[in-house]
Amino acid sequence: MKTKKFTLSESQMPTQWYNIVADMPNKPLPPLDPATHKPVTFEQMQTIFADELIRQEMSTERFIDIPEEVQKIYGIWRPTPLVRAYGLEKALGTTAKIFFKNESVSPAGSHKPNTAVPQAYYNYKQGIKHLTTETGAGQWGTAISFAAQQFGIDVKVFMVRVSYDQKPYRRLMMNTFGAECLSSPTTLTASGRAALAIDPNCSGSLGLAISEAVETAVQHPEDTRYCLGSVLNHVLLHQTVIGEEAITQMEMADAEPDIVIGCFGGGSNFAGIGFPFLRKNLTEGKRIRVVAVEPASCPKLTRGVFQYDFGDVAGFTPLLPMYTLGHDFQPSDIHAGGLRYHGAGSIVSQLLKDGLIEAQSVAQNETLAAGILFAKSEGIIPAPESTHAIAVAIREALRAKEAGQSPTILFNLSGHGIIDLYAYEQYLAGSLKDYAPDDDEIARTTSMLQNLL
Amino acid sequence: MKTKKFTLSESQMPTQWYNIVADMPNKPLPPLDPATHKPVTFEQMQTIFADELIRQEMSTERFIDIPEEVQKIYGIWRPTPLVRAYGLEKALGTTAKIFFKNESVSPAGSHKPNTAVPQAYYNYKQGIKHLTTETGAGQWGTAISFAAQQFGIDVKVFMVRVSYDQKPYRRLMMNTFGAECLSSPTTLTASGRAALAIDPNCSGSLGLAISEAVETAVQHPEDTRYCLGSVLNHVLLHQTVIGEEAITQMEMADAEPDIVIGCFGGGSNFAGIGFPFLRKNLTEGKRIRVVAVEPASCPKLTRGVFQYDFGDVAGFTPLLPMYTLGHDFQPSDIHAGGLRYHGAGSIVSQLLKDGLIEAQSVAQNETLAAGILFAKSEGIIPAPESTHAIAVAIREALRAKEAGQSPTILFNLSGHGIIDLYAYEQYLAGSLKDYAPDDDEIARTTSMLQNLL
Repeated sequence: MKTKKFTLSESQMPTQWYNIVADMPNKPLPPLDPATHKPVTFEQMQTIFADELIRQEMSTERFIDIPEEVQKIYGIWRPTPLVRAYGLEKALGTTAKIFFKNESVSPAGSHKPNTAVPQAYYNYKQGIKHLTTETGAGQWGTAISFAAQQFGIDVKVFMVRVSYDQKPYRRLMMNTFGAECLSSPTTLTASGRAALAIDPNCSGSLGLAISEAVETAVQHPEDTRYCLGSVLNHVLLHQTVIGEEAITQMEMADAEPDIVIGCFGGGSNFAGIGFPFLRKNLTEGKRIRVVAVEPASCPKLTRGVFQYDFGDVAGFTPLLPMYTLGHDFQPSDIHAGGLRYHGAGSIVSQLLKDGLIEAQSVAQNETLAAGILFAKSEGIIPAPESTHAIAVAIREALRAKEAGQSPTILFNLSGHGIIDLYAYEQYLAGSLKDYAPDDDEIARTTSMLQNLL
Repeated sequence: MKTKKFTLSESQMPTQWYNIVADMPNKPLPPLDPATHKPVTFEQMQTIFADELIRQEMSTERFIDIPEEVQKIYGIWRPTPLVRAYGLEKALGTTAKIFFKNESVSPAGSHKPNTAVPQAYYNYKQGIKHLTTETGAGQWGTAISFAAQQFGIDVKVFMVRVSYDQKPYRRLMMNTFGAECLSSPTTLTASGRAALAIDPNCSGSLGLAISEAVETAVQHPEDTRYCLGSVLNHVLLHQTVIGEEAITQMEMADAEPDIVIGCFGGGSNFAGIGFPFLRKNLTEGKRIRVVAVEPASCPKLTRGVFQYDFGDVAGFTPLLPMYTLGHDFQPSDIHAGGLRYHGAGSIVSQLLKDGLIEAQSVAQNETLAAGILFAKSEGIIPAPESTHAIAVAIREALRAKEAGQSPTILFNLSGHGIIDLYAYEQYLAGSLKDYAPDDDEIARTTSMLQNLL
C-alpha cells in the first residue's frame, strides 16, 4: 500500500528554530516609538515581555536552539504528521500531488502551542509567576493556558466578551487547563472600567482586551509579563518547527513542493510552514512559490498598503512597518476569527514588498465548501481559518489539471474545526454570507467546488 | 531525551483482527430467539446485518484478515500513538510506569471508527446503498457517518432527541460528513409515531432509536441494513486492532503491562485494548490483569447478574447471555453517556464469569478529577467515558506507591472530551452529582485526587 502519513520519531524533531531575518536581502524595518519615532529599545519592552523573547525579537542569528525543556513538551504532540491527501486528490480528479502538515493534533487543536510553550518557558526561567494575554476566538488563550500549566505559571486570559459568551467550549478548555478566563471588558483595569463607564453592555474588542492584558502586566513588573500569539518576530520564529519537520518529511516522501500554502491572520502559521522552504529559495536558488491566503473580507496583503501603523485599535503599541488596512479597520464578521487582523507582521510585509512571497484572497463560501470536501475525503474537519489554505490548494490543483500539469502542493492544516461547527452549519443551510461577491474568480471556483460536493 | 510517544509506521499496522472466541476455555453462549428460545440463525439476522458481519459474529477463527481497503482508510489515523504518561507519573509522584494508547486521534475523536469502517466496507461489498443506526451521545453516529462516506453509502442516524437538542456539535459533525441525522422519535417509523402519539414531547431513548433504525432497515432488504457500534462480537473483533498495535508498541518501549485497563459501556474499547493482552494469558501463561471500569451508577459487571436478557429496552432484540442490570434499568444521568448501557456483551460476560478479567466501578467526581489531572499533565482533555479508565490507572498507581511497588500500567484513552466540556464545567463549579456516595473507596480516592489538583 502507498504511504499516507509520513511520521518522524521524537529523535528526529528539529532542535533549532529558523530565523529568516538572517537570510532576508532587505531586513525588516524596526518598530518605532510613536512619541519619538525612534526605534523601540530593549529596555522599553522589558516591562512587557520576558527578556529572552525580546532578544529573539531583535535577533539576526540564523538558527536558535530549542531548549531541551521545550522539546520535551513539544514531544506531547510533535513531530506532527505530514499527510499525502490521496482522498482529496481523488475527489478533485487531479494529477497534482497534495500534501498537508497536520498541526491540529496539539493540546489546543492548532499550531498555537508551538510558541506558547517556549513563551511560557522563557518567562518561567526569568522567575515570572503570572502571564496575561488576550484572546479572540480562543485558540491562543487555550494554547497559553496549557503551556503555562506545564511550568506552574498562572494565566489571566482577557477574552473578548462577545466570544466569551458565544464560545463557551474554548473558555472551558482554558479552565480545564487551570487558567482564569475573564470576559473583557472587566472592572479590573482602568481601560476596562473606562469602556464600561461609556457602555455597560460593551461587547469588547481585541484592541481593548490587549489594553487590559498589557495594563495588568505592567502594574506588576516584579513577577508578571504579557504575551502575544502572532504577528511578532519571535512568535513566527517558534512556528518554524512546522516547516523544518515538513522538509524532512517531504524528503521521506521523495517529493519537493512547488507550492507551499498557509492561511494568513497575523502570520504565524504561514511563517511556520513557509519560512523554512523560503530558505531554499534564498540560499539554494530554488523557486518554490510560497503563498499566503487571506479572507477577501480582510485583504491587507492583497489590497492593503505598506506603511507604519499601530498594532492595535487604540494605538497603544509601537508603530510597526506593515501591510495594513488601517488600525481602525473593522473586519466583517466572518467565521475565521483568527484571520480578522488588520495588518501583517514586519517580516512578512517586507518579504511581500520584495516579491519573495505571494498573496491570494478567498471568500468564505468557497473556503467552507473546500472544508467540507476535505472533511469528507480526509476525515478531518478543518478550522475555518485552515479552510483558506485548503481552498487555494484546491484552486492550484484544479488550475494545474486544466493546464495538464502535475505540481506538488503542500499546505498547512493549522487546526481542526470541531468546536467551530456553526460555520459548517450555516454553510450547509445555505445561509453563509460572502463578503466579496464581485470577484469572478471567487464565483467560478466556488461553484466548481460546490459541484464536487 | 526519553521517548514519550511510541509510533508505528503504516507498514507496521496489524493486518488481522484477533477473535478471542478461539482461545476461550468456555465459549460464549449463543443469542436466543425470544419466541422459541432456540439459537438465532444466520438467516434470521440477514435482513438486519450484512452477511459478512454475521459470519464474523459467529466465527471461531482465531485471526480474521483486515481487508486492504479497510487498512487503507485506517491509515488516515492509524496506527495511533502509544504514549508514556511521564507528566501524569510526575503529578502522582509514582514509580509505576503508566502508558496509554491514544484513540482520540481518529476522525470521530474516539475508537468508534475502528469498527465503523469495516462495517461500512462489508455493506458496500454486498451492494448495500443505505445504512441506518442509532446514536446516544453521538460518537458512534459520527464514526459511521465518516465511514459510510468513504464508500458512497448514505446513512440515517436516529439520534435520541434529548441529545439531538443538547449536543448540536455531534449532529453537525455527522452533517459535515454527509449523513442525515434525525431527532428520534420521528414520524418516519411506526415505533416513532406510536411514541409521539402517547407523548408529542417525548424526549426519546436509545431503545426507541434502535427500534426506529431497525424498522427502517428491514423495510428495504434489497439495499438497506442496520449497524451497531458496540456489544456484538464482530464489533469487539474490529476493535482488537488497538491492542494488537499496543503489543508491538509496548515491545518498542521495552515494557510489558502488569495491568491493562479500559472503560466499559458495551465493551468495545475494553475488548480492543484488552483481548490481545488476554491472549497472552490464555495461550502463553502470562498473568496480566485486565480490568474493565464501569460507572458506579451503572454497575452491571460489579453488581449485575449473569442471565439471558434483551439488548434493548423494548425487548425487540434476541435474548443475549449477559451480565445485566435488567433491560429496563434506567441509569442515572451521568456525563459518560457511552457507559450507560444496562448489559455487557456475551464474550465479556463469559470472561468475567470465568474469572479471566476483573471489573471495578468509580463515581463521576473521581473520574472528572482524574480527567483534569490528566489534561493538565498530558495535554489531552479526555472524554468523560475515558476518565473512568484514567481514574483506575491512578488508583492502581497510588496503591502501588503505598505498597512500594512499581507496576507497568496500560490504559486505553478511548476518546477526547473537547465537545463534552460541560462535564468539566460542572465539576469545576462543584455542582457535579455523584451517584455512589456510600462507598468508602470512592470517597477516599476522590479526595486524594482533589488534593493533587
